[in-house]
Amino acid sequence: MSHQANAYAAHSAETDLAPFSFERRTPRPDDVSIEIDYCGVCHSDLHFARNDWGMSQYPLVPGHEIVGRVTAVGSDVTQYKVGDVVGVGCMVDSCRHCSACKDDLEQYCLEGMTMTYGSPDRHDGTMTQGGYSDSVVVSERFVVSIPDNLDPAVAAPMLCAGITTYSPLRHYGVKAGDRVGIIGMGGLGHMGVKFAKALGCEVTLFTRSESKVGEAKKQGADHVIVSTDEEQMAAAAEHFDFLLDTVPVPHDLNPYLATLKYDGTHILVGLIQEVDPALVGGNLVMKRRVLAGSLIGGMAETQEVLNFCAEHDISCDIEMVDIQNINEAFERMQKGDVKYRFVIDMASLKDASAA
Amino acid sequence: MSHQANAYAAHSAETDLAPFSFERRTPRPDDVSIEIDYCGVCHSDLHFARNDWGMSQYPLVPGHEIVGRVTAVGSDVTQYKVGDVVGVGCMVDSCRHCSACKDDLEQYCLEGMTMTYGSPDRHDGTMTQGGYSDSVVVSERFVVSIPDNLDPAVAAPMLCAGITTYSPLRHYGVKAGDRVGIIGMGGLGHMGVKFAKALGCEVTLFTRSESKVGEAKKQGADHVIVSTDEEQMAAAAEHFDFLLDTVPVPHDLNPYLATLKYDGTHILVGLIQEVDPALVGGNLVMKRRVLAGSLIGGMAETQEVLNFCAEHDISCDIEMVDIQNINEAFERMQKGDVKYRFVIDMASLKDASAA
Repeated sequence: MSHQANAYAAHSAETDLAPFSFERRTPRPDDVSIEIDYCGVCHSDLHFARNDWGMSQYPLVPGHEIVGRVTAVGSDVTQYKVGDVVGVGCMVDSCRHCSACKDDLEQYCLEGMTMTYGSPDRHDGTMTQGGYSDSVVVSERFVVSIPDNLDPAVAAPMLCAGITTYSPLRHYGVKAGDRVGIIGMGGLGHMGVKFAKALGCEVTLFTRSESKVGEAKKQGADHVIVSTDEEQMAAAAEHFDFLLDTVPVPHDLNPYLATLKYDGTHILVGLIQEVDPALVGGNLVMKRRVLAGSLIGGMAETQEVLNFCAEHDISCDIEMVDIQNINEAFERMQKGDVKYRFVIDMASLKDASAA
Repeated sequence: MSHQANAYAAHSAETDLAPFSFERRTPRPDDVSIEIDYCGVCHSDLHFARNDWGMSQYPLVPGHEIVGRVTAVGSDVTQYKVGDVVGVGCMVDSCRHCSACKDDLEQYCLEGMTMTYGSPDRHDGTMTQGGYSDSVVVSERFVVSIPDNLDPAVAAPMLCAGITTYSPLRHYGVKAGDRVGIIGMGGLGHMGVKFAKALGCEVTLFTRSESKVGEAKKQGADHVIVSTDEEQMAAAAEHFDFLLDTVPVPHDLNPYLATLKYDGTHILVGLIQEVDPALVGGNLVMKRRVLAGSLIGGMAETQEVLNFCAEHDISCDIEMVDIQNINEAFERMQKGDVKYRFVIDMASLKDASAA
């Protein structure tokens, strides 16, 4: 049986998020029904709400850093039982039979992944709706287990910010002793610092703002480079093995590339549009450097990052907000006024419904 | 004792190459003295002669695809003896003690390699002069052996065009069965086709010109895509494991990136300046693609490519010219009117000197 979900939705690109009710689907045999306790607030939520990428359909319930408790499982579900604390990240389905899906890289599914919100469901064609909601129904394969010793609220941002920074560090072979530069210290950047430290790297945070130096060191960065200071940038020439670039807007990659050793790798995870100023080809060719991309991570690796955080006592720094304050949170996030991730306490939605 | 070398040199950015005599250095204990028989004509030679990169000092003798016979060896030389057929490529020295040099990657020497022409010698500060000349004196470490069954004239272009295309195919892990696209079919591109075929790949040549389709297939390409045909490009979406991009001028990388599978690698070997039109970051991020660079190859790998060519019966297609026709050859090269590499028969220089 389908059931009614309460949520906050964007109803147009120009209006604030507002209360919204809709039907969650009748659970299928492989579905896990989840009561949502927490949902992280990602920059993509804002982009989708405002149709910045031109693909939004309204009403749209954002949210893809979902943590909650299992309330029901379908007959084919084997990994989860009622009461389990579980998570749902950026995707809720994929074709499951292509080479990418078979390699646990569902995010690169050759037929296209089904995003947690804003994608047509592969079975009934209805638009998926995200986690700014009191419940969600998701196929078992796209559900992860939240380890016991991980605070469920803190675990939520791992499902996007965490996996997005963890996956490329592992995929591109970052190892103990490497010199790693993290570019930008927002929700993604501060996780990048923590993961690189946990992997045994010497970690440098690049920030445009002198004011973030103390904070970066508190987060575990061994060094900080103020990227607007040409002298500091020049002093770092050919220094790094890896750069993890979390900046989501166009910026000059060339000065950063110059800080990479030969065979160094500059990893983009922010969805920047056109690289401007232009990339200088020689910055790659002359030192055999690599400019690489990475998109979230597969489901197996999403479970891995949660286990890694539990094992290494890594958490995301969060600020808890009520759903009624989501529009203010969006505004503050856009100004960079959050350390480092808003998480919505979904109990606030229930309180409001009860009121 | 130093000796006089006859050569052709650029005397300014604006004038034709013209006869020039100069002193080759007194051989050092680790030096091999070489009488030059053949020298390939590389695009870089033209760029240097015309000071396109703003670093040329005149008079300048170009040429870094050198093959000749050993005429003398210093007391410390162990690998070569008088009469051996040997080659000299793009570099003639490096620091020899940095991590790159220790890893046989002298081209990425942390102190900077000494180029075969246009670099200050590390010992006496004189400018190195290249292979458009009857002789050269080079330290043993930067000399390679030309295998017996390789035509010395044909071997010359392997020392730059060959190693430049071979090295990245090996370094970035191209293997049998991979789908490899070669972009551009000049001196480098046609070697790329041959190497990728020899490695067991399915090879596609991208060319702007319909007229090169037949020729590309003759060179061994399994398929040809006319890159100006949007339909052909669209049909190749997410098709390739690797692209080897030999185009040395700015061009739009985005349509090519779209032809790469997830985890695919686009390798730049041409020294393009600014990437224009702009690179779209999402073309890397959304499919975890990689944009990579590569510069020639180390000395050990330069020997390897010569051995590989001997073993797989791979040759470079050349057109032999006399040194007296070098300026015309430059002009024809610039128009793409060569299949696929000019090689100077250095006997022509001797004939002229005798005349």
